[in-house]
Amino acid sequence: MTQTASRYRFLLIHAFSLPSTSPYLHRPIEGPKEARLPNHELVKPVLEGIEWDLHPGPQAPYGDWAVENREEFALVAAGRLPIVKEACASGKYNAIVLLGGGEPGFMESREIARAFGIPVTACAFSQMHIACMLGNKFSIIDLAESHNMYYYNLVIQHRFDHRCASIRNVHIPFMRPGHESALTPQGERQKALRGERSEMVERALREAVCAIEEDGAEVLTFGCSATFWLKPFVEKRLAEIGWEIPVLEGYSSAIALAKMMVDLGVSASGLTFPGDRPKQWRRKKTF
Amino acid sequence: MTQTASRYRFLLIHAFSLPSTSPYLHRPIEGPKEARLPNHELVKPVLEGIEWDLHPGPQAPYGDWAVENREEFALVAAGRLPIVKEACASGKYNAIVLLGGGEPGFMESREIARAFGIPVTACAFSQMHIACMLGNKFSIIDLAESHNMYYYNLVIQHRFDHRCASIRNVHIPFMRPGHESALTPQGERQKALRGERSEMVERALREAVCAIEEDGAEVLTFGCSATFWLKPFVEKRLAEIGWEIPVLEGYSSAIALAKMMVDLGVSASGLTFPGDRPKQWRRKKTF
Amino acid sequence: MTQTASRYRFLLIHAFSLPSTSPYLHRPIEGPKEARLPNHELVKPVLEGIEWDLHPGPQAPYGDWAVENREEFALVAAGRLPIVKEACASGKYNAIVLLGGGEPGFMESREIARAFGIPVTACAFSQMHIACMLGNKFSIIDLAESHNMYYYNLVIQHRFDHRCASIRNVHIPFMRPGHESALTPQGERQKALRGERSEMVERALREAVCAIEEDGAEVLTFGCSATFWLKPFVEKRLAEIGWEIPVLEGYSSAIALAKMMVDLGVSASGLTFPGDRPKQWRRKKTF
Amino acid sequence: MTQTASRYRFLLIHAFSLPSTSPYLHRPIEGPKEARLPNHELVKPVLEGIEWDLHPGPQAPYGDWAVENREEFALVAAGRLPIVKEACASGKYNAIVLLGGGEPGFMESREIARAFGIPVTACAFSQMHIACMLGNKFSIIDLAESHNMYYYNLVIQHRFDHRCASIRNVHIPFMRPGHESALTPQGERQKALRGERSEMVERALREAVCAIEEDGAEVLTFGCSATFWLKPFVEKRLAEIGWEIPVLEGYSSAIALAKMMVDLGVSASGLTFPGDRPKQWRRKKTF
Amino acid sequence: MTQTASRYRFLLIHAFSLPSTSPYLHRPIEGPKEARLPNHELVKPVLEGIEWDLHPGPQAPYGDWAVENREEFALVAAGRLPIVKEACASGKYNAIVLLGGGEPGFMESREIARAFGIPVTACAFSQMHIACMLGNKFSIIDLAESHNMYYYNLVIQHRFDHRCASIRNVHIPFMRPGHESALTPQGERQKALRGERSEMVERALREAVCAIEEDGAEVLTFGCSATFWLKPFVEKRLAEIGWEIPVLEGYSSAIALAKMMVDLGVSASGLTFPGDRPKQWRRKKTF
Amino acid sequence: MTQTASRYRFLLIHAFSLPSTSPYLHRPIEGPKEARLPNHELVKPVLEGIEWDLHPGPQAPYGDWAVENREEFALVAAGRLPIVKEACASGKYNAIVLLGGGEPGFMESREIARAFGIPVTACAFSQMHIACMLGNKFSIIDLAESHNMYYYNLVIQHRFDHRCASIRNVHIPFMRPGHESALTPQGERQKALRGERSEMVERALREAVCAIEEDGAEVLTFGCSATFWLKPFVEKRLAEIGWEIPVLEGYSSAIALAKMMVDLGVSASGLTFPGDRPKQWRRKKTF
Repeated sequence: MTQTASRYRFLLIHAFSLPSTSPYLHRPIEGPKEARLPNHELVKPVLEGIEWDLHPGPQAPYGDWAVENREEFALVAAGRLPIVKEACASGKYNAIVLLGGGEPGFMESREIARAFGIPVTACAFSQMHIACMLGNKFSIIDLAESHNMYYYNLVIQHRFDHRCASIRNVHIPFMRPGHESALTPQGERQKALRGERSEMVERALREAVCAIEEDGAEVLTFGCSATFWLKPFVEKRLAEIGWEIPVLEGYSSAIALAKMMVDLGVSASGLTFPGDRPKQWRRKKTF
Repeated sequence: MTQTASRYRFLLIHAFSLPSTSPYLHRPIEGPKEARLPNHELVKPVLEGIEWDLHPGPQAPYGDWAVENREEFALVAAGRLPIVKEACASGKYNAIVLLGGGEPGFMESREIARAFGIPVTACAFSQMHIACMLGNKFSIIDLAESHNMYYYNLVIQHRFDHRCASIRNVHIPFMRPGHESALTPQGERQKALRGERSEMVERALREAVCAIEEDGAEVLTFGCSATFWLKPFVEKRLAEIGWEIPVLEGYSSAIALAKMMVDLGVSASGLTFPGDRPKQWRRKKTF
Repeated sequence: MTQTASRYRFLLIHAFSLPSTSPYLHRPIEGPKEARLPNHELVKPVLEGIEWDLHPGPQAPYGDWAVENREEFALVAAGRLPIVKEACASGKYNAIVLLGGGEPGFMESREIARAFGIPVTACAFSQMHIACMLGNKFSIIDLAESHNMYYYNLVIQHRFDHRCASIRNVHIPFMRPGHESALTPQGERQKALRGERSEMVERALREAVCAIEEDGAEVLTFGCSATFWLKPFVEKRLAEIGWEIPVLEGYSSAIALAKMMVDLGVSASGLTFPGDRPKQWRRKKTF
Repeated sequence: MTQTASRYRFLLIHAFSLPSTSPYLHRPIEGPKEARLPNHELVKPVLEGIEWDLHPGPQAPYGDWAVENREEFALVAAGRLPIVKEACASGKYNAIVLLGGGEPGFMESREIARAFGIPVTACAFSQMHIACMLGNKFSIIDLAESHNMYYYNLVIQHRFDHRCASIRNVHIPFMRPGHESALTPQGERQKALRGERSEMVERALREAVCAIEEDGAEVLTFGCSATFWLKPFVEKRLAEIGWEIPVLEGYSSAIALAKMMVDLGVSASGLTFPGDRPKQWRRKKTF
Repeated sequence: MTQTASRYRFLLIHAFSLPSTSPYLHRPIEGPKEARLPNHELVKPVLEGIEWDLHPGPQAPYGDWAVENREEFALVAAGRLPIVKEACASGKYNAIVLLGGGEPGFMESREIARAFGIPVTACAFSQMHIACMLGNKFSIIDLAESHNMYYYNLVIQHRFDHRCASIRNVHIPFMRPGHESALTPQGERQKALRGERSEMVERALREAVCAIEEDGAEVLTFGCSATFWLKPFVEKRLAEIGWEIPVLEGYSSAIALAKMMVDLGVSASGLTFPGDRPKQWRRKKTF
Repeated sequence: MTQTASRYRFLLIHAFSLPSTSPYLHRPIEGPKEARLPNHELVKPVLEGIEWDLHPGPQAPYGDWAVENREEFALVAAGRLPIVKEACASGKYNAIVLLGGGEPGFMESREIARAFGIPVTACAFSQMHIACMLGNKFSIIDLAESHNMYYYNLVIQHRFDHRCASIRNVHIPFMRPGHESALTPQGERQKALRGERSEMVERALREAVCAIEEDGAEVLTFGCSATFWLKPFVEKRLAEIGWEIPVLEGYSSAIALAKMMVDLGVSASGLTFPGDRPKQWRRKKTF
């Protein structure tokens, strides 16, 4: 419908893409956008009424496996910026949603997009902000040691170290050369969707309960986007044993936050993300 | 429109009402809901697509003047809770928006509404959370000494003391018995809307600039709802002198946040706002 | 004795009262004031030399059971304020002590009483402040999930989140309609006073030891006033197993703190609790 | 009077003494104890009902001038400990009050005295704790640059860095060899008591107003004990210009706090100040 | 000398290089390494005894002007990582020093180098850590609004927000297309070295004094490496007016810190910068 | 060698010495300096190229056993200051390294030495600062309950409470009168050096693993200098089970830090450690 369409026009950008020949492909790279958006069923309600495009993200320059460590994140971050810049300049979108749990290039994208008055949201940022609206402390369920510690820095950068109860690791990383495994995030997702027992769901549940009982988590979030599919499974299992705890995931959080920013007509502060030669400048900044 | 209508069904509740005979009436108490919602012009865009009702709030039990100090806030907070309870039980709404800058009864309303799965937002909470998405630090522009210090406690309770650069006081309080004044928030608003010079706008601008240059504010918010009308005036004036700073106000912030919570299907954590005898309980809580 | 009498003239105010017909009566409502002051034996030494009256507090407006959740606290808070106001205006007292672990109406009462130069103390505030004089961190032993989380907000409001090691829950709440139980705080107290095994003492001891060994507590305090009777039992048991840890309870803490404030001639800062139109006001407040 | 006498039996210990031949004598060293207690008129009301002795403190080992820098504080701290030890062992006292603004030897004295169940209070500790009961932030008015920075460490050690708005320096230090001056704390006090204009009062007032208006102080305290006499002068002057702010000083604060500890039967946590081989010990300590 | 040579073998890597045809060349790109290391005279003493090579850094991919904003930093960060990787793999170096005030790629470089047991230091990190050894708070003198706010994030990421008094801006940015100026960091440096009046020195001095007197700085550091040359000028001028304050600059700080890490045989924690599949992993991480 | 000799000329000062007749002698008191420096083998590499002398420290004035509690630390702190003063005045040294885990007299020594432009480092300070360069959080392995809590105050004073994961106690204190034991730090060291099983190594390992897995430590440090010998044993054992965690010890940390300060020509800020009558002084200090 025309009116709604003009209200929210979003570009969703993946963190990175792998070549079609990669043995480590972690998501469908063909088909309609809905098929190329992992866990589309989870975010469908939030996407309702939004006109959206999906960009595959920059191709990973370091190899054909998924991003996990700081080095890989920095490389795809750099690759993402021209995409954001072009999207802003195109005039087609009024918000940009960075997919990918580790939000490579998020701060830089906000700097770029603010000059256009366009909000940018991302999955870690959005989950953390929303989690702190719902409870005193939140925990993060994540999948790999190196990714945990990269994410640790995001928690600090977004200034949630006093509200983050813990990062919990289910230790089911992506495969990468030399690290093949029968246990993968994608495989576990398939099992769970088929109604089979999934070790990843079990571990996530175990870590969730520890996060609640030991770490003080009152809200749960996820780290790497390859864990986002766990949301309904963990939520349901926790509810069954009596824990009335909100469980967020990154895609819907980032999309909903972008909607809110569009509703309010805000993107980011020009003092926080100044242009190169702003009209006004401040002699001092304090913390 | 049917579809949109069913998505967001909000009850907006004023903090308190004054008897129609009050010499200190601070807002219209008759006419269509739009007329009884101060600064409707500001929030109209955000309200678009929302089915909403407006409740006048409890009548102030302490007298016929506006709420400003802690005692008065506590009294109207108590009066607001039955209204929230009834609204939740009515099944008519999927979110409740507490109007009023000082959000009396907010935490209690969340406790009540969570059991119904209904989100409650309020103006201080919403502005602060959104401000911290846009910049490192925010300041609050407010109107009375007693209200400032009541609000100070809200900043602490919502855990934004490390992000709040300052509360700035324009010192134009409401009138109350024994404290008549030619300078009132409502009168200043009228002047500004007529395009006349408003002392309140000038003071707000002065405090805003000091907040930016001295206190480190990167986003501006407002305290008492009687200051919310200042938003476009302050924003425009700051932009004219080159400060590219987002200026929020409480009503649209609270409404937009409520939309977001409805979009995500969240209200509040059951661990943070537990029922009386929850199925699960925690042996310890940490900070 | 005349001299002492004139030095400390206190009004102790219960948090709320229940109708005499209530099946959930939680304390004696008849007899001399000593009988109507729970655990009088514990506070008698501190009360020595103090002229005191005891007010039953406002009658609970929501029902005939004890306060536990945020809603109930807000309602009795509102009811307490006129009592405080009248007591201040009476000229009979030079300090007001708010009984009740959750200190409903404390901040508002301080605002009211400061204008009279009268200090107001309350049980959470007093225990926390004193605990931090004695050790690095303290824990709180409390009795119900909803009360814990209400109390959590008090810890934050009083700014002790960095000093509070934990809130520990013995999970023996008051009875309320639909939640009858053989295990009640009052019943457990009777058992303990009779020298019988009390499950509540055992649980409190278990939580106390965990607070010490796991959470880092170096001082112990109590939450709901219905746990205050545990103090000598927990203290003694801990001492027997070798833990030399101070155990505070709310009544004596609040009374002793009120004495100290009277001794020093202080009540509260007029900048923190300003009157409605103070002679001086501040352009900015910082955190 | 017998009854009162047995309740509070205090030893007040000066931070240090100077030889009677010193040209820098900073307080009377002869006469009744009241004459040897500076500003006795200020603390007399708090001392009422207390049996007290006054110890001159250790003689300064480094020279014949007053303590100001860290080195001098460390030396007199060492000298004070045997005095505290002997006082505890004597059985004559149930509280020890360390006079002297910089409280040399305070933590060590608490360690010593706790084994005897005897509370020790001191002037910095007491003022800071009490100040935080009265307002959100406090400032410290002090007299010398080196003393300021020594005191800065006390603020951190007592964990009040988030509550201390500022240390303000009137820059009127003690005289010491090579640093003679017409302007001395003692001389200024005499002028003020005689009703003459005192530069020290004027500077303290100026710094107090800046502390209130710029730094956010809501309570005022003093640093070096040679500034304590300023309390009534600063308080009165501030009240005259409309600032309703509590002004504390160290002696009465420390004495009142000691009374409170005696009332409650507490001294310090045995976990915070453990004996050499405590019965129980903790595997871990956290912050 | 052989022995010394083998002890410290460092590679210094510039943040980025510009093409020789750039009109915005900001440092010599020819000649011996000493000539290509800006302010070599400042760091010469610290370099004594170190075998070092100098790498020009990656060529800026976005244009031919100097890095200032977040986007530009992200792009050169990505370019720097292969250089670090190759240097580590070469076996020629036992430490890597990242030149450039904004330390692009620092965290990623540490991740890469830790696997080789090689420490990496950088200019912001090193100055901040060393500053906090010397005083309670430090300020940063920097040159451009966008760079300030990029640097702001570094302060947070390195967790110095509670120790950083302020970022002070002299507002003399690099030239870039469309922003030509007669006032440049390099030009000012030449003036100062020739003994002429330099506006940049004057502004830096003004900001330094404000940082000391208003913000509470007790140590001074610099932001962008184009301000490092100011160190001796600011230090001398401050000393002349009596401020005994240490002034650090990034190159010598980073080199000295690298030496210290080599001396101790440490690089970074393997838990903080884990490899892709570490032998041990942690179920939870806390803040 | 002449050149090196002139670069680093250090005096290492023990915390205290015991009389040769003491039954509790904790280190060799005769022989060459290398023999009198415990764990010389550990620090030898760091000492390379440094000209150093070793001072035995002040003789313990309280008895003939090792320092452990606050009182004993205060007494030897006072005894250390004249040694530091004399060393500074001698002109022989360009840095002073305070041995002893609890660094008695450290702050005072810095005050004294700064006037001479001489850096002073100590073992707690140095380990904590370096640990925070290597990882997010560190733990401290220590040996006695009283020492733990004294050390707790050092962590706070050096402002590392947010970075210190825990103090872990192996509970093998020194012997002292009335507390003889078969298990001593020195005896355990001998066993470990002989390749025998050492209970102290086992306990340290157990606490180290708990610090890593439960407390969040990413770097390990030691408390009392009598635990420093554990470094290589703990490090090796942890590495064997796969924990790639840096383990620091105090002597080498303090020496390496002193070298770094000499390299940079810094000692301490004159604003933090002002002289008695500095040329400039600040009206306010903030936190």
